[in-house]
Amino acid sequence: MAAEQGYTELMWDKIYINAALATMDGDAPYGLIEHGALGIENGIICFAGAMASLPDQPGGLACEVIDLEGDLITPGLIDCHTHLIFGGNRAGEFEARLLGKSYEEIARAGGGIVSTVRATRDASEDSLVETALQRLDAFIGEGVTTIEIKSGYGLTVADELKMLRAAKRLERERFIRVQTTLLAAHAVPPEFTGNADGYIDLVCNEILPAAAAEGLADAVDGFCEGIGFSPAQIERVFTVAQDLGLPVKLHAEQLSDLGGARLVAKHRGLSADHLEYLSPEDALALAEAGTVAVMLPGAFYYLRETKLPPIAALRAAGVEMAVATDCNPGTSPMTSLLLAMNMCCTLFQMTPEEALAGVTRNGARALGLTDCGVLKPGLRADLAIWDTQHPSSLAYHIGHNLLKMRDFSDAR
Amino acid sequence: MAAEQGYTELMWDKIYINAALATMDGDAPYGLIEHGALGIENGIICFAGAMASLPDQPGGLACEVIDLEGDLITPGLIDCHTHLIFGGNRAGEFEARLLGKSYEEIARAGGGIVSTVRATRDASEDSLVETALQRLDAFIGEGVTTIEIKSGYGLTVADELKMLRAAKRLERERFIRVQTTLLAAHAVPPEFTGNADGYIDLVCNEILPAAAAEGLADAVDGFCEGIGFSPAQIERVFTVAQDLGLPVKLHAEQLSDLGGARLVAKHRGLSADHLEYLSPEDALALAEAGTVAVMLPGAFYYLRETKLPPIAALRAAGVEMAVATDCNPGTSPMTSLLLAMNMCCTLFQMTPEEALAGVTRNGARALGLTDCGVLKPGLRADLAIWDTQHPSSLAYHIGHNLLKMRDFSDAR
Ligand SMILES: [Zn+2]
Ligand SMILES: [Zn+2]
Repeated sequence: MAAEQGYTELMWDKIYINAALATMDGDAPYGLIEHGALGIENGIICFAGAMASLPDQPGGLACEVIDLEGDLITPGLIDCHTHLIFGGNRAGEFEARLLGKSYEEIARAGGGIVSTVRATRDASEDSLVETALQRLDAFIGEGVTTIEIKSGYGLTVADELKMLRAAKRLERERFIRVQTTLLAAHAVPPEFTGNADGYIDLVCNEILPAAAAEGLADAVDGFCEGIGFSPAQIERVFTVAQDLGLPVKLHAEQLSDLGGARLVAKHRGLSADHLEYLSPEDALALAEAGTVAVMLPGAFYYLRETKLPPIAALRAAGVEMAVATDCNPGTSPMTSLLLAMNMCCTLFQMTPEEALAGVTRNGARALGLTDCGVLKPGLRADLAIWDTQHPSSLAYHIGHNLLKMRDFSDAR
Repeated sequence: MAAEQGYTELMWDKIYINAALATMDGDAPYGLIEHGALGIENGIICFAGAMASLPDQPGGLACEVIDLEGDLITPGLIDCHTHLIFGGNRAGEFEARLLGKSYEEIARAGGGIVSTVRATRDASEDSLVETALQRLDAFIGEGVTTIEIKSGYGLTVADELKMLRAAKRLERERFIRVQTTLLAAHAVPPEFTGNADGYIDLVCNEILPAAAAEGLADAVDGFCEGIGFSPAQIERVFTVAQDLGLPVKLHAEQLSDLGGARLVAKHRGLSADHLEYLSPEDALALAEAGTVAVMLPGAFYYLRETKLPPIAALRAAGVEMAVATDCNPGTSPMTSLLLAMNMCCTLFQMTPEEALAGVTRNGARALGLTDCGVLKPGLRADLAIWDTQHPSSLAYHIGHNLLKMRDFSDAR
């Protein structure tokens, strides 16, 4: 029995003590444990509870003990919707617009998404990795431990796969977990102008199967909008994705209500994203399907939109809400998930607790991940540690980063 | 002659070469010099021009040469309007409001500005310095080299002076220049409820003279608003300030048009700040007086305001516009001047060049400083160096910091 106890002791690698824990689990607001401790064993949380219930010397002498003196631990942050990989940038276009150039003039001068597609096609995989790292480091510096990255600026078999490979490579460059999403149905590429159905043929017959064959996509996404693809076109993509065993998600109801949320709910999708124009009935469809609603306030802010997503209807229906940056060069050149939290509170009137759940527990759900996003035994020890005592501070600040350190699980 | 040449050479301490220079001087957009160099001698810029016109080996062997490989130099950023020094924080109030509590309930529970006044009075000067440093470091990390800091949460002789002393002390803790502003006329303190004129007596007869006697205030400010002080009350403060030789500025036309901008123009004030409700005629008054219009988009965003400041009228009148964070715990808990630049472009439709001028050349003017804010010989070598080639990138990003390094002049 002494030996058994000794064995147990040696298994704990690290304990954080005197911490506030926002476990995001259980009934208390934030699942908050004010005088808490968190133990880690092989990259997995083995204890998350009150200091008072911490076993004596669980790790013996071999265990690293870190006294946080009251500082806050949250799950490592999860950004479940980004377009982090792309070539070029659109600062010149931003400036041209503010100098009074019209969208037509900018398009004629080669601007808009077409310019990002061109720059992404022209970029090597190495250079896509290199330019993405600058942005990724901003996320990491704010406590992000899992990030979703979409393709969608390549729009050919080779270029979509190149984007996904670049995204996966980021996991080898930094301590970060990357979930990849194939977004070939993002825009009609120039060579298919006037023939969106022809491009959807390419997506279904070549791009999707190729990405699946190489194991490059964790999910499949589309852009359902008047300026994107119709629900019928998106459904063709979803059907092929599901035949290949890949879960689906959708950019839906950002600028109009085409019924995209209903469609993704019908396919039991992981998430419906944007949703400013969602109808209250379709919130019920999302709830029934267990599809997460992903709020993207960066694009709302950047495009100066005024139509707010129906937060009250989503709450009433019991839809889980996630929060993400939508980091992209054209409509949300934002690399701060903390700022997305503040924007969800300030612009959408979500609560600070909903904002934090949106980048932890519900961010994980939007990616179909069950091993992170909450602090409880058995889950990955991906942690963010903050220079504050209460989690409401995280959403309260605007452009202020309270991160002290990050812990990234070495469990594979 | 050879000796003279040698002497000149030895004076240069440092040269940045192969830099893009946004000098903010001259007629070209941003005063941009694409292939530029910048030389420094005793903390003062001694050369800012094209690589092609750089003298040969100006500093000889003793000169440090830094090759920026195309990266951008701007003047060190200047935040000309902050309330950086305060006790406590208001995250709990932010959360209570989003959980549906009314302003009355929050006020009854001791919230609002009164809570910040109480916490600031309770705080020691040391603790005010310590908590401000956490915020100040965020500004420094974005390339800020000059910051204005107001009093206004003490509202007694001792507590207003304590705030100003704490602000001045920050200059000894970090490489930063602090300009202090006495804002005793910020709010009526609880002990003067119903007797605003009695409090203005205290401001004019005791607080202002005491701050001036200790040399603690570089300028004097007030809050002219229905919930603050009337123009007549503010004018009493301005008159005393000017008798003491201190320049004035004013929080004006944020929530209504009380003619505050006209008043500050009449007193040839340094700046009129906020200005959402400014009338076009009063823009002309600002232009005539040479008073800078300070844009504070953080409070506009945080309070979800919809009335935009009259940018077109200010432009047409030729008013210089500055951009600042208004960093404060109640209406703009923001520590990112880069984000304020983006908000000015996104929300107020200012151009990226106007935004950069607002945190450099015009930020300096709003503080009455003539030795910084522009890159030209004779001015302080306060610099920010960015991982980008073009200055439009600075305002384009949302919550992304491209700073590579900062240079702070050692000239006194
Ligand atoms: Zn997106
Ligand atoms: Zn202010």
